[in-house]
Amino acid sequence: MAIKSAWVNKQAAGDAKMTELAGYIADGAMSFLKAEWKVMSYFVVIAALLLAFSGTMVEHSHPVIALAFIIGAVFSAFAGYIGMRVATKANVRTTEAARTSLVQALKVSFTGGSVMGLGVAGLAVLGLGGLFIVLFNVFVPAGEAITGDGMKTAIEVLAGFSLGAESIALFARVGGGIYTKAADVGADLVGKVEAGIPEDDIRNPATIADNVGDNVGDVAGMGADLFGSYVATILATMVLGQEISSTDNFGGMAPILLPMVIAGMGLIFSIISMMLVRISNENSSVQKALNIGNWSSMLMVVIASLPLTMWMMPESLSLRGYEFSNMDVFYAILVGTVVGALMSWVTEFYTSMGKKPVNSIIQQSSTGHATNIIGGLAMGMQSTVIPILILAGGIIFSYAFAGLYGVAIAAAGMMATTAMQLAIDAFGPIADNAGGIAEMSGLPDEVRGRTDNLDAVGNTTAATGKGFAIASAALTALALFAAFVGIAGIDSIDIYKAPVLAMLFVGGMIPYIFSSLAISAVGRAAMAMVHEVRRQFKEIPGIMEYKAKPEYEKCVEISTKASIREMMLPGAIALLAPVLVGFGFKGVFETTSSAEMLGGLLAGITVSGVLMGIFQNNAGGAWDNAKKSFEQGVMINGKMEYKGSDAHKASVTGDTVGDPFKDTSGPSMNILIKLTSIVALIIAPHIAVDSNHSAGHGHEVINMMEDQILEDGRYEINVHFESQDGRILVNHSMIELVQERRMATVMLDINPESMRSVFGIEGGEFHFDGHGETLDEGRSRFRAVGPLRMGERGDFECEFIFGTNANGGISGDLYVR
Amino acid sequence: MAIKSAWVNKQAAGDAKMTELAGYIADGAMSFLKAEWKVMSYFVVIAALLLAFSGTMVEHSHPVIALAFIIGAVFSAFAGYIGMRVATKANVRTTEAARTSLVQALKVSFTGGSVMGLGVAGLAVLGLGGLFIVLFNVFVPAGEAITGDGMKTAIEVLAGFSLGAESIALFARVGGGIYTKAADVGADLVGKVEAGIPEDDIRNPATIADNVGDNVGDVAGMGADLFGSYVATILATMVLGQEISSTDNFGGMAPILLPMVIAGMGLIFSIISMMLVRISNENSSVQKALNIGNWSSMLMVVIASLPLTMWMMPESLSLRGYEFSNMDVFYAILVGTVVGALMSWVTEFYTSMGKKPVNSIIQQSSTGHATNIIGGLAMGMQSTVIPILILAGGIIFSYAFAGLYGVAIAAAGMMATTAMQLAIDAFGPIADNAGGIAEMSGLPDEVRGRTDNLDAVGNTTAATGKGFAIASAALTALALFAAFVGIAGIDSIDIYKAPVLAMLFVGGMIPYIFSSLAISAVGRAAMAMVHEVRRQFKEIPGIMEYKAKPEYEKCVEISTKASIREMMLPGAIALLAPVLVGFGFKGVFETTSSAEMLGGLLAGITVSGVLMGIFQNNAGGAWDNAKKSFEQGVMINGKMEYKGSDAHKASVTGDTVGDPFKDTSGPSMNILIKLTSIVALIIAPHIAVDSNHSAGHGHEVINMMEDQILEDGRYEINVHFESQDGRILVNHSMIELVQERRMATVMLDINPESMRSVFGIEGGEFHFDGHGETLDEGRSRFRAVGPLRMGERGDFECEFIFGTNANGGISGDLYVR
Repeated sequence: MAIKSAWVNKQAAGDAKMTELAGYIADGAMSFLKAEWKVMSYFVVIAALLLAFSGTMVEHSHPVIALAFIIGAVFSAFAGYIGMRVATKANVRTTEAARTSLVQALKVSFTGGSVMGLGVAGLAVLGLGGLFIVLFNVFVPAGEAITGDGMKTAIEVLAGFSLGAESIALFARVGGGIYTKAADVGADLVGKVEAGIPEDDIRNPATIADNVGDNVGDVAGMGADLFGSYVATILATMVLGQEISSTDNFGGMAPILLPMVIAGMGLIFSIISMMLVRISNENSSVQKALNIGNWSSMLMVVIASLPLTMWMMPESLSLRGYEFSNMDVFYAILVGTVVGALMSWVTEFYTSMGKKPVNSIIQQSSTGHATNIIGGLAMGMQSTVIPILILAGGIIFSYAFAGLYGVAIAAAGMMATTAMQLAIDAFGPIADNAGGIAEMSGLPDEVRGRTDNLDAVGNTTAATGKGFAIASAALTALALFAAFVGIAGIDSIDIYKAPVLAMLFVGGMIPYIFSSLAISAVGRAAMAMVHEVRRQFKEIPGIMEYKAKPEYEKCVEISTKASIREMMLPGAIALLAPVLVGFGFKGVFETTSSAEMLGGLLAGITVSGVLMGIFQNNAGGAWDNAKKSFEQGVMINGKMEYKGSDAHKASVTGDTVGDPFKDTSGPSMNILIKLTSIVALIIAPHIAVDSNHSAGHGHEVINMMEDQILEDGRYEINVHFESQDGRILVNHSMIELVQERRMATVMLDINPESMRSVFGIEGGEFHFDGHGETLDEGRSRFRAVGPLRMGERGDFECEFIFGTNANGGISGDLYVR
Repeated sequence: MAIKSAWVNKQAAGDAKMTELAGYIADGAMSFLKAEWKVMSYFVVIAALLLAFSGTMVEHSHPVIALAFIIGAVFSAFAGYIGMRVATKANVRTTEAARTSLVQALKVSFTGGSVMGLGVAGLAVLGLGGLFIVLFNVFVPAGEAITGDGMKTAIEVLAGFSLGAESIALFARVGGGIYTKAADVGADLVGKVEAGIPEDDIRNPATIADNVGDNVGDVAGMGADLFGSYVATILATMVLGQEISSTDNFGGMAPILLPMVIAGMGLIFSIISMMLVRISNENSSVQKALNIGNWSSMLMVVIASLPLTMWMMPESLSLRGYEFSNMDVFYAILVGTVVGALMSWVTEFYTSMGKKPVNSIIQQSSTGHATNIIGGLAMGMQSTVIPILILAGGIIFSYAFAGLYGVAIAAAGMMATTAMQLAIDAFGPIADNAGGIAEMSGLPDEVRGRTDNLDAVGNTTAATGKGFAIASAALTALALFAAFVGIAGIDSIDIYKAPVLAMLFVGGMIPYIFSSLAISAVGRAAMAMVHEVRRQFKEIPGIMEYKAKPEYEKCVEISTKASIREMMLPGAIALLAPVLVGFGFKGVFETTSSAEMLGGLLAGITVSGVLMGIFQNNAGGAWDNAKKSFEQGVMINGKMEYKGSDAHKASVTGDTVGDPFKDTSGPSMNILIKLTSIVALIIAPHIAVDSNHSAGHGHEVINMMEDQILEDGRYEINVHFESQDGRILVNHSMIELVQERRMATVMLDINPESMRSVFGIEGGEFHFDGHGETLDEGRSRFRAVGPLRMGERGDFECEFIFGTNANGGISGDLYVR
């Protein structure tokens, strides 16, 4: 990555004018980043304090979660910084390269994108992996089982990293989205429409802000978004993997390590595939070159996953009662990759020029603004059908193969090629910027022609990238959802219960208000931009004659301030909604826990958010390309229509409506659904405690108080089991230890009434065999996995840690999950 | 109603020209109805045959369901016919009345609306009530308990009535919505925009179609929609009421009868309140008069519900384990009424002229078409927040008061004033038509002024009516949802299960595709209309000079054909989606029944449909009124803007986009969510049979084969229990009969393993006391309600019907629910 970055830096940056313009863009981008970081640093400090405090309150968390959160935030911010830094260097160098050839221009712009991709993916693997190793060593006592308490705490703390990353992603994506579209819409409304000057004209005061916006929204925002998805996916898979007790060569940790290994592998394959992205001459297809790189990276991941999975994972695994094999895990990875590929492909169909959806919008532009809008909206809604069916199929199949772990690992498989995806995504705005610089510097038409060629491809890759991003967000959210259920200690989210159903409605509404806020923020910020540009045209004489320079920095400032101000409320909704439901309804309903209600809320947000995201991204992309189609001319009712016709004007309206759809609101849905799920995961231990009993499945610590040794070498213990709000009466209990064989048999005849009231389960005698081992401090432990003979359906995992107590008897803790 | 109808007929119909125009409208409306009926009759016959066939296949249904379906369809069609008939008479008579005074004009138009309202509500009460009495007498053997089999069959057959009503509503609402907007948009695009003639100009060939559309969509469509809601609500409450075993003065039928009695009571109060709708002079507020009528009818229903509920319902009730009192039932009714009132009120805020939402759209019209659209979309999305919170609160509170019966009875309470609501709704299009006739007949400006006054109020009532309709549809859908769960024999819909979650996604997508189809249908039909109008202007010389008459009927035909063709696909989706999921996934997943997946689908459709409905109705209404505001002039950036300004043109774009939103797609969501729920309810017995075991709660018939009489007067029976796919092994069983005291005790020691596999429940000894009675043919029956001593949570209802068999022993059926 450093090599690629250095290579980009080494390229020629063009003449003085180009360097000056590029400097404005780079400065504008940095000034946004700095302003954003300033606000976020307040947020990060406050949130970290809250997290540290909350970490002290429950078992299985730790104040150090605050540190993980800060590291996640810093890493995410740094990933955005790297991308922006190289993008603002690569843009002008691409322009310069385009003076010589398309081959060279693609090389420079794609290398710029690659730096971004590798930087993000590398930081994710490095950050999450490094932190995991540290936490593992700190929290997991040597010899403790993977499914034990230490590992639970380690992973809960690791969730802080993901929360930090996703929080920054929220600000970067939503703020960046508002920034870029406020500048774009503002620049177009006054520049193109009122003053009649072309796009990217140097006389337009908002044009620098517009170009900054491409970097802020499309590079930094997209980077932070995928960084967040990448981290969250791996994390969710680790949470679920931690629950699997696995007999493998990694000390039982294979299910936890697998997603991280796949990510590392994907990173390597992405680097290899990036070398394949090259064209031979001016007439080569840029799209084809990118496709070859993309498909080959996916293919390599799939092929390599098979031996990897077979080698790492044991032949038989079980998660929450769902049995599956290592081959099933591979199939789930395959499903994830196929879903990702299909989603990109469908998105391309709905948003590409020359295909039926875009053409239908073009036709409907002929009867005016309104029919263009109606056409785009109808098309966007229709475009949800196939992606949703693909997603539903993906959920069902990955689950059928490997249960909830399958859903999570499918997401991980899909995300493995994130580096490549991001390289392709970031290449677009670099090319867009390069074109802007060419236009502003007054370079020859052939240069602009080459950058336009790259830009057109960039528009398509932007759309497919969004398809990939929403699919990855959806699968990630589901994996997090499953992880949340586990940690919250509930075993169902039953929408037949009225409070859960009510929350499903509320959750479904949240993407609507989020989207409404994002869209109106763009509207308001664009209006402010329009007024500023009008003012400059009026008050600074000579702008139009190129005699005076517009005050670019004023426009940059407007966009920066507006985006930071306007992202507060949507951000607060995403962060607070799960907290309000989780804590607000804690203990309110007798038969329904707040955790279950929160589950309903998450499901509502995810379903509605995915739909809104697909709808808005595709409608926006299609409107954009319908408008672009007029540049080459389109055939409507047997007549060719070009730029400037009434139909073209109608298509511009559609494009302007689509701008906040596809670049602000639509992509923000990814963040919304992931962030709410992560927040839920973080608060899960807090709301789980009380929800334990109504949910009937949980985690309890039981202390054994008295005991007694029988003559025949067995221990009989009269156990006084205490839980937080009830007692378990044990009629009779017996533990038979065969220490030398490291085996034990426990029999507890627990009073059914108390068993029901505390665990919410039926059962009398409680009897299991398990595998034991000796711990430090003279304590022993054994674990039993699988059904207990307790007259009860479902699986249990039991862990019993005991030692000799002061009375010479045995005392210890029995964990039932 | 007949009196009011006759009174409307008696009013003067105006001069020859007015009568001629009114005749065109009436003919056009009738020709649509006839074309619609023709298509629907095919559908009804085919669907009835399928229903009859399916009715033979499962217990608790009956082929006679086909007859109920046909009756429901005919009643619904007849309700639409009455409304349309009187509306097409009242329109011209309102115009004539407006020549004298506003007082008289309101009287005629509102009386016209009242006929519609009373007709619909009256037919619903009459049809459903009459059919219920017949079915009760046919299916329920004298003396059989209300919670028994006969009643179950009777109510399942009654669901056919509701299906028939809702199917017709689908065609009326969707078809009518397409009709009215195709004509409206088509007429406006050529007439106003291209030819420069005013709205409702007699020279415009599409103007008659436009006026027909008002009747077809807003009168007949709305009428059929609310007729469907009304019937479905009562039905769902009856289904749930049937499960309640109640000790009351109505033979245990009070919970079943209550919704019907409330409906009848609401009808009477609506008639009384209609008398309060009057104004004293030209300057009186029409809105206030309507509000007085509306609020007083609601208030009367609430007040009268208290003594009614206390009188009819017993003090303590229980449904599926949820205990509640008669006072709780009243509170639930209160909640429903409050929800309905609040929803109307919020809708009014978001769509009324002069309020903040509409004003913000006006302001955003100043910067062009695109910002107007963005503003409207953002506002529409934002407007979902409060209604959803109200709805969520309504669900939670009504459930908290009286469980699922509470949710259903809340909907019934809300729907009680349907007659009044419809009168207010139907008054709008009558006034609109009256204005059109005034314009076309060239009547003096003061006449048009009076009808415009009425029309403006009609626009607001149309919007609030839509708020009421969507809220009622949502509550109805939830009630149906609860009824479905009961009949399908599942006891949870767990979105934590992957296949259920996948269906939640698919369900959420269905309103998107439905809406997309409806909106593009309007676009296509409007284009066809545009071409026809252009053709007539070109080919028929003298139209513009009033010398030649346009071929109105051609335009009517286009709208009619297009609407009938285009409603097929959305209709098919609504009808088939539940069937495909219910049958397609039957038995596919081991741990997840297709019924549970169908439940996920319904939840997705309901949540997403309610959101889309509110969003589209409110955005459309706000755009409409933003445009209308320009007629009086609006202040934008300190400058007054009027009709014809650029800002006004932008607002017209918004209005045109909003037209299919608020009059086609938005209101169709009501039908979509209700219809899918009813279809699910109808197929529930078919998919329940197999889903029994995984669901763990069901309905089984167990045949006793051998028996033996013990010395001490007790019977010992070795029971060979057979269910469709498993055996129940009974270790020991004993029945102690004390015939003279009509009491019995049954003890069955059922093998726990077989108990689990067949019923999905844990349990050993099975022991209960019950109340018995003697049936015909020497058989006896006793029922036991409440928890069985079976080591199992939850309630059971058991029914045991037995008699002496050929061997002199006892044999019979044991029903466990």
